[in-house]
Amino acid sequence: MRMVDVIEKKRNGYELDKEELQFVIEGFTDGSIPDYQMSAFAMAVYFKGMTQEERVILTQLMVESGDQIDLSAIEGVKVDKHSTGGVGDTTTLVLAPLVAALDVPVAKMSGRGLGHTGGTIDKLEAVPGFHVEISNQEFIDLVNKNKIAVIGQSGNLTPADKKLYALRDVTATVDSIPLIASSIMSKKIAAGADAIVLDVKTGDGAFMKNLDDAKELAKAMVDIGNGVGRKTKAIISDMSQPLGFAVGNALEIKEAIDTLSGNGPADLNELCLTLGSHMIILAGKADTPEEARQKLEEVMKNGRALEVFKTFLASQGGDASVVDNPEKLPQAKYIIEVPAKEAGFVAKIAAEEIGVAAMLLGAGRATKESEIDLAVGLVLNKKVGDEVAKGESIVTIHANAEDVEKVMNMIYDAYEISGEKTEAPTLIYTEIH
Amino acid sequence: MRMVDVIEKKRNGYELDKEELQFVIEGFTDGSIPDYQMSAFAMAVYFKGMTQEERVILTQLMVESGDQIDLSAIEGVKVDKHSTGGVGDTTTLVLAPLVAALDVPVAKMSGRGLGHTGGTIDKLEAVPGFHVEISNQEFIDLVNKNKIAVIGQSGNLTPADKKLYALRDVTATVDSIPLIASSIMSKKIAAGADAIVLDVKTGDGAFMKNLDDAKELAKAMVDIGNGVGRKTKAIISDMSQPLGFAVGNALEIKEAIDTLSGNGPADLNELCLTLGSHMIILAGKADTPEEARQKLEEVMKNGRALEVFKTFLASQGGDASVVDNPEKLPQAKYIIEVPAKEAGFVAKIAAEEIGVAAMLLGAGRATKESEIDLAVGLVLNKKVGDEVAKGESIVTIHANAEDVEKVMNMIYDAYEISGEKTEAPTLIYTEIH
Repeated sequence: MRMVDVIEKKRNGYELDKEELQFVIEGFTDGSIPDYQMSAFAMAVYFKGMTQEERVILTQLMVESGDQIDLSAIEGVKVDKHSTGGVGDTTTLVLAPLVAALDVPVAKMSGRGLGHTGGTIDKLEAVPGFHVEISNQEFIDLVNKNKIAVIGQSGNLTPADKKLYALRDVTATVDSIPLIASSIMSKKIAAGADAIVLDVKTGDGAFMKNLDDAKELAKAMVDIGNGVGRKTKAIISDMSQPLGFAVGNALEIKEAIDTLSGNGPADLNELCLTLGSHMIILAGKADTPEEARQKLEEVMKNGRALEVFKTFLASQGGDASVVDNPEKLPQAKYIIEVPAKEAGFVAKIAAEEIGVAAMLLGAGRATKESEIDLAVGLVLNKKVGDEVAKGESIVTIHANAEDVEKVMNMIYDAYEISGEKTEAPTLIYTEIH
Repeated sequence: MRMVDVIEKKRNGYELDKEELQFVIEGFTDGSIPDYQMSAFAMAVYFKGMTQEERVILTQLMVESGDQIDLSAIEGVKVDKHSTGGVGDTTTLVLAPLVAALDVPVAKMSGRGLGHTGGTIDKLEAVPGFHVEISNQEFIDLVNKNKIAVIGQSGNLTPADKKLYALRDVTATVDSIPLIASSIMSKKIAAGADAIVLDVKTGDGAFMKNLDDAKELAKAMVDIGNGVGRKTKAIISDMSQPLGFAVGNALEIKEAIDTLSGNGPADLNELCLTLGSHMIILAGKADTPEEARQKLEEVMKNGRALEVFKTFLASQGGDASVVDNPEKLPQAKYIIEVPAKEAGFVAKIAAEEIGVAAMLLGAGRATKESEIDLAVGLVLNKKVGDEVAKGESIVTIHANAEDVEKVMNMIYDAYEISGEKTEAPTLIYTEIH
């Protein structure tokens, strides 16, 4: 088989069979197929797409290109959640203890990554003492005991995807639904989940700027998941404005604690209840969405969710007293209010710009080498649809540098205040099965 | 400027400006843009094409990437001819002395290349003593003196195109009209011609299998040529069967001598008169096609064309007596006739297969390292439309090995004999200005 013939076949719009895709992925991973052929192939896929069968085979091949995590020693149905990413997305921090409180095992493999804030692990490290340096055996034991543990991404997971993503990133072949879907799903599948709930974001602050693209991506991922035998569901949720109030690492821990206590921002709370319902249904702990939601609200109300969060933090070296005393979390030196320049209603908050402002404060990494400042970030006091008086604070800046003029200007740019009341955007657009 | 942005712009169907194309071609030539970005770019061009302006700029940039031959010391309008290649194409060997006989300067830079037979230089080397190892000054002096000389491709012509072609060849991005057209035209332009006549072949034995593609390519090349200020014309000619009778190096020299004497195969003769007319009109030596054709026929008839051919061969060390004594050309050991298995009319001759059969005998190079056997090849005794009796020879094999069973089978495969008479195919489909 020659790679040039496989590229030509895809270029001409034909479906590739398993043998051909295997030749491509194995050859690319072991280096016998050079980058210049793989990038031409990726561009052909960009234009000609992939059939459902091709997508499933490609995903399987990427899973098989490296280690696969074996979670079979953990009792119960392991349900993982994945979000396509946005600004101020605190859902994982809430959902993990929330569903664990209903005996759904949460064996979370997480990362740090680049972005406006840190990844889940960075956020958790805002809790003094918390660490993810545990052995695989400890990880499994902890999940069996507490129903929840978080470990750093280790081993050689989906090397084919890593190599391909790096190449796509510099060859304008990122925006391909089959390639995005198989990339995300291969990582989730290799990480060992039995079932997967996907939160596909759409809007200004998301990778998928419009609803149709988000739906297409969600459907592609759900079909791949089900195609490889992992029960998969997706919801499409709004990212036209940041989710919740907090954008920052320690600030999001605080917000997660509030939400687990039933006092979280309405949108974050609603999204967690929706995603959580799907998770516990997939795990067999509830039969209907109504039953699931009721159970979730119950463990928020009776303190069980918060209890599980404390146990989880303490089990991995963290100071669980932060839950009752959030002032023990890293605190920024300067708390600066951003007063509204005019009265009116918030018509729009450009999520992307708020994220960049938080990163500018030091809340996220621009490059792998960047150091994160866990204390800094933003708290949005007003969201879309809220009324605001002139001079009232729209955002609170938590900074460790006194000069925040640039950040403040970005916030003013991001906020649009209108004389007429705008409805808050739809939070959850649809579900994809 | 970042290459990934330029790839994305092309991928999204936008026109690139001069600065962007310059960034691409210069960066690719100097190695600062890696192959994996260039191949993704080429695939994007395959799908999205290039505007006329982009094609002209791209061609110019490829010309400027290396040396440009200066033919200004040669008097008169230098007209070059280019064929997109086929099987048994003896036109260059005929046309060069033919138009030189009418005082049109032929300063031919030629190659060896891969294919069913050798390139023009290989064929000429079938004449004992003939060589192209002459200095640029000798080359120019010879053209001024004799109106004709041939030199090997030397120097660093269009390195950008060489590098890009090698990459396209292994990434399924060869079949792109803008890329093919700019590749061919950049080489012709760098070689210094004032005007260019293109012979674009179509049919089974050609790169362009169908007429519409051939027309599109011809138009693209003509527009580029005229766009960079070189008068360019094209004709579309048939390659559904081999051109002329001979396929082989010495055999084609013999056929060229016959044609220059006015005794060539009808199709080869007609094609040479058509291309030659365009050439001498572009060179200002005739005003109308009728006048041009009359002049060309005259130098065939009065022996002037053959005289020029002899002078040309002798000037570059060749034994010009082969013209009158073609038996002095390399002769194959075995002359084997291929008898028709049935009576009827030749309905089809698969040109490609005849070419491969000739290569199998040793007439061409499969790889750069292959040695060519100048003596071997095929002579077609019957062409499409000809009547043939059972047992009559359809092809004469000139071989240096006794066992030609495989070659003979290929010839039988290539020939289709039918009970009904087929018309000979149209030779010249159209002209493109």
